[in-house]
Amino acid sequence: MTIRIGILGYGNLGRGVESAITQNSDMELTAVFTRRNPEHVSVRTAGVKVLHADELEHMQDAIDVLILCGGSATDLPVQTPHYASMYNVVDSFDTHARIPEHFAAVDAAAKAAGKVGIISCGWDPGMFSLNRLYANVILPEGHDYTFWGKGVSQGHSDAVRRIAGVKDARQYTIPVPEAVEAVRSGANPELTTRQKHTRECFVVAEEGADLAAIENEIRTMPNYFADYDTTVHFITEEEMKRDHSGLPHGGCVIRTGKTGLNREHQHVIEYSLKLDSNPEFTASVIAAYARAAYRMNREGMAGCKTVFDIAPAYLSAKSGEELRAHLL
Amino acid sequence: MTIRIGILGYGNLGRGVESAITQNSDMELTAVFTRRNPEHVSVRTAGVKVLHADELEHMQDAIDVLILCGGSATDLPVQTPHYASMYNVVDSFDTHARIPEHFAAVDAAAKAAGKVGIISCGWDPGMFSLNRLYANVILPEGHDYTFWGKGVSQGHSDAVRRIAGVKDARQYTIPVPEAVEAVRSGANPELTTRQKHTRECFVVAEEGADLAAIENEIRTMPNYFADYDTTVHFITEEEMKRDHSGLPHGGCVIRTGKTGLNREHQHVIEYSLKLDSNPEFTASVIAAYARAAYRMNREGMAGCKTVFDIAPAYLSAKSGEELRAHLL
Repeated sequence: MTIRIGILGYGNLGRGVESAITQNSDMELTAVFTRRNPEHVSVRTAGVKVLHADELEHMQDAIDVLILCGGSATDLPVQTPHYASMYNVVDSFDTHARIPEHFAAVDAAAKAAGKVGIISCGWDPGMFSLNRLYANVILPEGHDYTFWGKGVSQGHSDAVRRIAGVKDARQYTIPVPEAVEAVRSGANPELTTRQKHTRECFVVAEEGADLAAIENEIRTMPNYFADYDTTVHFITEEEMKRDHSGLPHGGCVIRTGKTGLNREHQHVIEYSLKLDSNPEFTASVIAAYARAAYRMNREGMAGCKTVFDIAPAYLSAKSGEELRAHLL
Repeated sequence: MTIRIGILGYGNLGRGVESAITQNSDMELTAVFTRRNPEHVSVRTAGVKVLHADELEHMQDAIDVLILCGGSATDLPVQTPHYASMYNVVDSFDTHARIPEHFAAVDAAAKAAGKVGIISCGWDPGMFSLNRLYANVILPEGHDYTFWGKGVSQGHSDAVRRIAGVKDARQYTIPVPEAVEAVRSGANPELTTRQKHTRECFVVAEEGADLAAIENEIRTMPNYFADYDTTVHFITEEEMKRDHSGLPHGGCVIRTGKTGLNREHQHVIEYSLKLDSNPEFTASVIAAYARAAYRMNREGMAGCKTVFDIAPAYLSAKSGEELRAHLL
């Protein structure tokens, strides 16, 4: 039984999903959908059609799960509920504060259509969320910490690019090693924003730009940089291309807590990721959850789900017997 | 709604469950059951009865979930199917090779009784298994590694204690730091048993015992020590009591794998535990799964389940709304 996948949106994430499908032998990519002119989009998998997003209105018989690879700001709040009324869908909606309303919209659409819509898949939200939940239920009395990086923050890179005189920019978020060590030791430190992460920017300036002014504008930018210790390096376009063309990321979720009638025993649970490609890893999580969406829907389930609602076995192509024999 | 818990068996694990219940405000300990004379067992929670295991035959109205705290060798293969025919049950059965038959026996009993039986809860099997599964579905092409320790192995300590001339012994399993680092680096090393872990024994010898003979017998013991680099320290009873009375443990599950159409990107997923008390941590996992057993059964589910079959949200006393708002 092959799961027929459609991808809507062919940016970094869409390309990551395309590649993840090649690693899952029970899936095949049926088509890539775009809101651009399909003739201007060429996909890397031989034989896969590129179609305009409008075609999705009538392709329900050809696609088992539609993976939505748009952005969380404006695309997904519209797309996920819309397509959940026609398809099983998976998205990576990551605006934490707006998850409740997004869940409600997708849930209503998916329930009415008898489809499964899985939202907020990836690593944060996603695998980090799962690990926060598991660690919290095991150690009800404890402290949670999340560190991100070292990795490229797309939002912060964009913010720097919008500064006058900046041609290109890449921003790395970096956990403060001493803070991570203090947390791992079980010391339960209270950490300010500045104590948890530093930010490092690599900037290609336009010719004749005022470098001191750019650096000052970065360091003092509210929300993005003002609360952090930020270093700024000016580099050439060649250096940017050579040293900073990847999208690595990662981080860790740590929970420390105590057990025992007198809370005399300390425990540390840590989940950490070191990723060469943030979008490809996110896409790989999404592919596994696409399998879950398909299988849960075949069992008659419908509505919006998150990683919290999905029994892990649904993610695997292996049977319960195989999983118990080899992974338990 | 309070979940009424019964504990069968009051060793280290049973005491750990007793203490875990005090950290979960939606649970209460109804009674501790023992196969010993109940008058010889005193529990630490005020007001909790100690009853003979025979009383379990007619206490179905007083207990929502029975937690089985016996051993995997002889207790649980009999107890878990037996009590799954009367109660929702949770055990920590950890004989990996016999999980399939244990699952089948518990599944038949639980289904016939309309109860939920959760087996093999703890950290390995348990949280380590879960992390193996999640990491495998995300990175289908990769390598798995599990390291245990530094921690006390009860089985290896017992094996040393059985040697003539040994009064007491404690064995620590220790991961080889270079091996762990090589795995974390993504080098995908092929590691022999000897390259992954070392073993360290602390032994109290009887007066006049032949220490060289004891050390030789330990180092050459098949299955337990022969395949490892083992160090043996002879210490006094006072030192044993002072320095080795705890049951710490831990370890890590690491999966490395590649993504990208040309498998050009490397990723490392690591889950690690550092535990002051192995039995109390295991008990804390069990307590969370007892909640799941209760809730799943109230929704009409029945049969044997493992950590793979249980949606994470069932483990938490919080509602789906709360979980999505605060942990996702």
